[in-house]
Amino acid sequence: MRATHIIELKKRGIELTEQQISFIVNGYVKGEVPDYQMSAFLMAVCLKGMSSAETAFLTNAMLLSGDTVDLSSFGALSADKHSTGGVGDKTTLIVAPIVSSLGCIVAKMSGRGLGHTGGTIDKLESIDGFCTDLSHEEFLSQIKRIGIAVIGQTGNLVPADKMIYALRDATATVDSISLIASSIMSKKLAGGAKNIVLDVKYGAGAFMKTKTQAEKLAKEMISIGEAFNRNVSTLITNADAPLGYAVGNSLEVIEAVQVLKGEMRGEIRDLCVDLASNMLMLSLGWDEEYAVQRANEEIDSGRAFSQMKKWVAAQGGNEEMLENTDLFIKAPYIYEVKSEKEGYIEQINAEKIGLASCMLGAGRTKKEDNIDMFAGILFKIKVSDYVKEGCTLATLHTSNKALIKHAEKLFYEALSFSPSPAESSKNA
Amino acid sequence: MRATHIIELKKRGIELTEQQISFIVNGYVKGEVPDYQMSAFLMAVCLKGMSSAETAFLTNAMLLSGDTVDLSSFGALSADKHSTGGVGDKTTLIVAPIVSSLGCIVAKMSGRGLGHTGGTIDKLESIDGFCTDLSHEEFLSQIKRIGIAVIGQTGNLVPADKMIYALRDATATVDSISLIASSIMSKKLAGGAKNIVLDVKYGAGAFMKTKTQAEKLAKEMISIGEAFNRNVSTLITNADAPLGYAVGNSLEVIEAVQVLKGEMRGEIRDLCVDLASNMLMLSLGWDEEYAVQRANEEIDSGRAFSQMKKWVAAQGGNEEMLENTDLFIKAPYIYEVKSEKEGYIEQINAEKIGLASCMLGAGRTKKEDNIDMFAGILFKIKVSDYVKEGCTLATLHTSNKALIKHAEKLFYEALSFSPSPAESSKNA
Repeated sequence: MRATHIIELKKRGIELTEQQISFIVNGYVKGEVPDYQMSAFLMAVCLKGMSSAETAFLTNAMLLSGDTVDLSSFGALSADKHSTGGVGDKTTLIVAPIVSSLGCIVAKMSGRGLGHTGGTIDKLESIDGFCTDLSHEEFLSQIKRIGIAVIGQTGNLVPADKMIYALRDATATVDSISLIASSIMSKKLAGGAKNIVLDVKYGAGAFMKTKTQAEKLAKEMISIGEAFNRNVSTLITNADAPLGYAVGNSLEVIEAVQVLKGEMRGEIRDLCVDLASNMLMLSLGWDEEYAVQRANEEIDSGRAFSQMKKWVAAQGGNEEMLENTDLFIKAPYIYEVKSEKEGYIEQINAEKIGLASCMLGAGRTKKEDNIDMFAGILFKIKVSDYVKEGCTLATLHTSNKALIKHAEKLFYEALSFSPSPAESSKNA
Repeated sequence: MRATHIIELKKRGIELTEQQISFIVNGYVKGEVPDYQMSAFLMAVCLKGMSSAETAFLTNAMLLSGDTVDLSSFGALSADKHSTGGVGDKTTLIVAPIVSSLGCIVAKMSGRGLGHTGGTIDKLESIDGFCTDLSHEEFLSQIKRIGIAVIGQTGNLVPADKMIYALRDATATVDSISLIASSIMSKKLAGGAKNIVLDVKYGAGAFMKTKTQAEKLAKEMISIGEAFNRNVSTLITNADAPLGYAVGNSLEVIEAVQVLKGEMRGEIRDLCVDLASNMLMLSLGWDEEYAVQRANEEIDSGRAFSQMKKWVAAQGGNEEMLENTDLFIKAPYIYEVKSEKEGYIEQINAEKIGLASCMLGAGRTKKEDNIDMFAGILFKIKVSDYVKEGCTLATLHTSNKALIKHAEKLFYEALSFSPSPAESSKNA
């Protein structure tokens, strides 16, 4: 078997065998297939596509490149969730306590962010003392004790994905449904959960720009799940605008706490209940109506918030900060952005808000970059709100005063106004 | 400007600007654009194509990567020819003496072969003493004196093509009309000739498998020639079967001598007269009928053969060997392949004959390989000939007795028989 032959076949749009796909993936991980052959192969995949069978073979080859977590001792109770991007997405922080409080097992490995904002791990680390680096024994023992643990991805979880992802980023081969699906699913499968709920985003803040593309990606990931005997359900949600009011690590943790305390209703709570009920349906066999009811009750009774405190304490975090969010360190500079116009907020471009937030210090542009936990943007308004000139649109939080003007400019570029109300909020 | 952006545009099928194309080619030559980005770009070009304007920009960027030969002092008289592959193609050895004897200037840089058989340079070196490594001054002075010189490509002639070609070979990105056209034409343009005749081959022994593809390639190369103010004419010829009877370096030189001596008529002489007359038409402004007549006369009068001897002598070669071709070193083993069947020769697969010849020692599989000058295959039959069982089909020439059986097997695989005569020889 030769790599050039496999590349040639894919270039001609011919379906590859399992052997051919694992030859190229294994060869790449071992350093026998060089970067330049892999990138030509990836470009051919982008332009000629892969069948569902090929995508499953690719996922399997990547999965087998590293370690996997065995959660089989938890039977059908283990559940994981994943969101494909989206600016301001703090749903894991809300959903994980709800479902683990109700009996699901949430044994989750999560990533650090690269780009707009931090990842779930970065957000959790804005809580003083929170440790995301548990040993395998500590991880399993905590799950058995309280049903939940969230840790950083270990070094050898799907190394093929890490290598291929870095190459895709440098060779304009990111936007292939098969490559995205296999990248996400190989990590979810390696995580070991029997049940997987995927929030597939589309719009300005997501990889998938249209709903049709998001639906295709969802279908592909469900098909991979079937091939690996996992239960997968998907939500398709719009990510044109940021999710909720907060963008930035500690700002998002505070918003998650507000939702769990029952202090915040609307868009973000609705999405979290939707995600949670899907996880409950798959893991516990509940029907939708019952699952939604139980998820809401878990918030309103305060049990979900208690579970979050239990979880934070178990991982060494200061649970006091959840009771009193004023204990989170504040940004040295908090700048109010005032509206220069009057009208209805027609659009808040999530991608540009993500960039502005990154500029303020909330995200990384390189893996080595440090994140300011307190940096980010806190909105006072949402899409379809009516605003007057001079009213506060948001606060910008940063440690670098010099960047405020640049971030404000980007912030304004993200907004569009309309003289009449929008027909309906896209995020509703 | 970023390489990923340029790759992304080509992936989406968007026409690139001259600046974008030269950015990626120059960056690659300088080592700033890595192999893996170039190969992703090349795959996108293979699958999305390039416009004629883009192909001309690509050719120019490659051309400017190295040195060029200035033949402007010869006005419109300089003529070059190129054949896009083909097994057993020794036409340069015949055409160059004919046209230079008639007043064209043939100042040619030629390649060594990689693959089936040697290149023109390898063939010429089978003549004792023939030197293909002249200084620039020696090259120009010989041209002024006798109108012809053929030397090996210098180190810095179109380095971008050398780099890109090696990468294409390793990444299954060879078969793009734009990439093939720009590769050939950048070298021809760098060679400096005002008039260029291209023999575009199609069939089993060529890159282009169909006549339609060959016509597209020819059209693309004519269009590049126009962009660079060169006169280009093209022949489209079939290369299903080897050209002539001889395949292998000294065997092909001997066949060329036979044609120039007027001892061999048919296919190969016809093609050479066709190529020569095209070069004469472009360089001297002759009409077709007159050019064909003069080319034939040049052979029949012996003047073309005299010119070849003058040429060989000028480059230090032993011209005696041309008068008496028995002076060429013979292979230690010459094996007669006898026909196992009776019938008409329906097909002689050029590609397989090329492989058999390479196996016998006539070609290289790696750049460092040595070539046996005397190795190869000498046919006794041609397509559409009628053969009886036991009659000699060809002789195999080699220094490695052990390989004869393997080569003979490949030889048989290349042949197909038919009980009835073919309608016409494809090479006619």
